[in-house]
Amino acid sequence: MKTKNVARVAIAGFGGVGRATANLLLSRRQRYREVYGAEVRLVAVCGSRSGLADVGGLEPESLDAFEPGLSGPAFIEASGADIVIEAGPSDFRTGGPGLAYLRSTLSAGRDAIVISKGALVHSGPELRAMARSTGATLKLSGAAAAALPTIDLLENSLKGCEVLEILGIFNATTNYLLDAMMNQNLGFEEALARAQAGGFAEADSRNDIEGWDTASKLVLISNFGLDADLTMDNLSVEGIQSVAAHDIEAWRKRGLVPKLVGSLVRAEGATRAAVGVRTYPLSDPLAHVSGKNKAIRITTDAMGETIAIGSGTEPLATAAAALKDLEHILTARAARATGCSGGLE
Amino acid sequence: MKTKNVARVAIAGFGGVGRATANLLLSRRQRYREVYGAEVRLVAVCGSRSGLADVGGLEPESLDAFEPGLSGPAFIEASGADIVIEAGPSDFRTGGPGLAYLRSTLSAGRDAIVISKGALVHSGPELRAMARSTGATLKLSGAAAAALPTIDLLENSLKGCEVLEILGIFNATTNYLLDAMMNQNLGFEEALARAQAGGFAEADSRNDIEGWDTASKLVLISNFGLDADLTMDNLSVEGIQSVAAHDIEAWRKRGLVPKLVGSLVRAEGATRAAVGVRTYPLSDPLAHVSGKNKAIRITTDAMGETIAIGSGTEPLATAAAALKDLEHILTARAARATGCSGGLE
Repeated sequence: MKTKNVARVAIAGFGGVGRATANLLLSRRQRYREVYGAEVRLVAVCGSRSGLADVGGLEPESLDAFEPGLSGPAFIEASGADIVIEAGPSDFRTGGPGLAYLRSTLSAGRDAIVISKGALVHSGPELRAMARSTGATLKLSGAAAAALPTIDLLENSLKGCEVLEILGIFNATTNYLLDAMMNQNLGFEEALARAQAGGFAEADSRNDIEGWDTASKLVLISNFGLDADLTMDNLSVEGIQSVAAHDIEAWRKRGLVPKLVGSLVRAEGATRAAVGVRTYPLSDPLAHVSGKNKAIRITTDAMGETIAIGSGTEPLATAAAALKDLEHILTARAARATGCSGGLE
Repeated sequence: MKTKNVARVAIAGFGGVGRATANLLLSRRQRYREVYGAEVRLVAVCGSRSGLADVGGLEPESLDAFEPGLSGPAFIEASGADIVIEAGPSDFRTGGPGLAYLRSTLSAGRDAIVISKGALVHSGPELRAMARSTGATLKLSGAAAAALPTIDLLENSLKGCEVLEILGIFNATTNYLLDAMMNQNLGFEEALARAQAGGFAEADSRNDIEGWDTASKLVLISNFGLDADLTMDNLSVEGIQSVAAHDIEAWRKRGLVPKLVGSLVRAEGATRAAVGVRTYPLSDPLAHVSGKNKAIRITTDAMGETIAIGSGTEPLATAAAALKDLEHILTARAARATGCSGGLE
């Protein structure tokens, strides 16, 4: 009798993205059966204080009946999940609640899919080493820049090439503010007030405008796409808060478009990483990455420049990025199974 | 004693790209050992009438001493290669010499990496079925659009998403001609004559300007990235030869940039594919894909629009694309080996 191929998934963190991920996963169960021969069950979900578990698999209609107290690493571990999706609040200064979930998951050799950046920015190399020592898979497409291909571009599309430079436009709030300053003739404070009033910037948007969100994504892409060991302390981080009216005026006159970019240059074994404003002429595709769009430009020795631009709608796009990771895990499990039963040279 | 993990590669077709592929492969042997534990040997290379073979592995300095008569599928088969890179002249109307090489390789269950488009456009579904039945791997990054990520974007970065539309700018000659008509006020014939004089267009450039090169790449991406069954007969193909002065004038007035694009739309199980001129406003990144740059825009249900733009220098970029395929083959072989020796749930 054939052993049933079951993947048991838990989602820790159940805000907008966690919920979107749960719903998308449940809607794709038929696909997982057909493509991977895998029965994917959502065995647990939880927020910070309540949750739900069912070893037989949760259904969409049950996701609102959370029970108090069902939360935390021990709860997720008890659910029997062999794949944990971490989608909680992100705090790169402490690691946030995700850190405990990821330590518990990876140290036990279970696979993790990470959506929130905090734990990975705070303790990325530690978690990476933990995954390697236990043989667990650690994927983070949703954290690295949502639907924009970044790490998988490095791992797959540019495989074999030496990466010389990475440059990314990763943050929507600063895209919005710089556009408003350039095109609506607003000062920084005025643009920020309007963005906050319109819901395009958070009430406390320092994380975005001071460049920390961009820096976080750059650290993740470097550490997990290039196997680097960057910390936030290695980066020179400048935001857009000091962009002045005369800067805007000068860029406008010269036909340049400012963007907040994270950049990484590798030369002779050394890596330099920074976040700051750069300007692009209108003939450069990067000049036209605005609003919620994100972009990355990777320069390699053999393939020249490769640009990717992504423009998915949240939270669906981030959920889809996390579930892309799930399919790569299912693919690897299926390949291992084939390798054992099939012939090997 | 551990069996040595040897990959034996042959290259059929030894023009600029074949030679660049051989040199790049030989320069990366140390990498293959370190990353995959694989001893990669170049055991045979051949052009249409002569070649070279060495079961112990050819070295860079020996690649000019071709011997007459060493060519053809039987020669490659006798070389003992288990991975064949096909880089010969491309003819989508007959399949070209590549067709015989690929049939011989895939029917014997050996892996193939394809760089020339002809055989795959002519007989793609047949070759795909042959590979599936023998368990051979068939990769074609170099044929699909050189260094531009296309099929691997579909297979990896957008995994799990439903593809609604694909749109590509795949041809440098038409980029060049349309740019010249728009910006230098040249008519089509004059632009073509200048491009031919400057080496930007071939003497017989009908394949490019009539849209067949673009159509070929679209067929490959569709058939191998989406598992479609398109033939050239399914496409409506229009080139740029009928673009008139009044079109150019009208586009210029409206601030639009014309591009020759291949497009594919999927809706309700049906697929419509076409090649023709479309125009883009200057605010669209695709308006700025010019010269030798290529681009693809993929629209999916869950990740919105993803654009990739590639700008490698040939023939190195195409060689690197083919060797990206080689690394994916080495990765899969290593994973199968691990699956068998390691634990499996």
